[in-house]
Amino acid sequence: MKEKTLYVVIAGCGAVGGRIAGHLSSMGHSVVVIDRDEKAFNNLPWEYSGFKIRGDVAEIENLKMAKLKNADAFLALTDDDNTNFMVTQVAKKIYNVPMVLARVNDPSNLKLFEEAGVLVVSPVILTVQFILSFFLGEDAERKRKV
Amino acid sequence: MKEKTLYVVIAGCGAVGGRIAGHLSSMGHSVVVIDRDEKAFNNLPWEYSGFKIRGDVAEIENLKMAKLKNADAFLALTDDDNTNFMVTQVAKKIYNVPMVLARVNDPSNLKLFEEAGVLVVSPVILTVQFILSFFLGEDAERKRKV
Repeated sequence: MKEKTLYVVIAGCGAVGGRIAGHLSSMGHSVVVIDRDEKAFNNLPWEYSGFKIRGDVAEIENLKMAKLKNADAFLALTDDDNTNFMVTQVAKKIYNVPMVLARVNDPSNLKLFEEAGVLVVSPVILTVQFILSFFLGEDAERKRKV
Repeated sequence: MKEKTLYVVIAGCGAVGGRIAGHLSSMGHSVVVIDRDEKAFNNLPWEYSGFKIRGDVAEIENLKMAKLKNADAFLALTDDDNTNFMVTQVAKKIYNVPMVLARVNDPSNLKLFEEAGVLVVSPVILTVQFILSFFLGEDAERKRKV
């Protein structure tokens, strides 16, 4: 049985957005990526077969053009938390997108996003956890030896 | 038996460096954090009990002042990959620090660091993996149902 193709709209085509768009597209999903900077599309892999919209994600026309109302998932991955917050609220409340996820650049904003019912990813927190795992690993190792 | 206190030198006291310094310090380790921007120390939690050095990590005098030669671990966490590469090489090759880890901001630099024997953390790659896990999770879920 063929797996369902998801329709995914991605705001922001930086180092993260471009890679995600490439991966999802190669997995067979339908992807639209929006960025106001034409150069950002250089972050897409050459084999990317989805759509690209050049424009400000904070302008509702661009979200309409991306057919956000049909999206199964919306990912707000710009480097600006205010923009990410605003567009995730549009995706959730106006377009009822089932899965809405935001990159939260400043960890002090995490609570705001979570209280608004948005899935979050914090590059800072992930990086901190990864580094600490080396030290916690050493501690665990030491405890086993004691 | 008391666990060994590690001596950890951290270059860069941004959102990541400040949090790591705080955690390691609260775990009882000896921490020195170096940043050229006094304001960066605002990223340290109030209970941080380690040392702070205000200065450019790329200047060897500051690394000497941090007693890098005595360090069990050195973490290069600035937002500049060139700086991180240079200081990790000093830590490994001049001071023989046993554990040397660098934050690599541009994933295209990862190979360079890895070939130089440095442990790496890439916030971009961690973020991409985290986001993809939602979609891979959905795929796995769907496969189980088929």
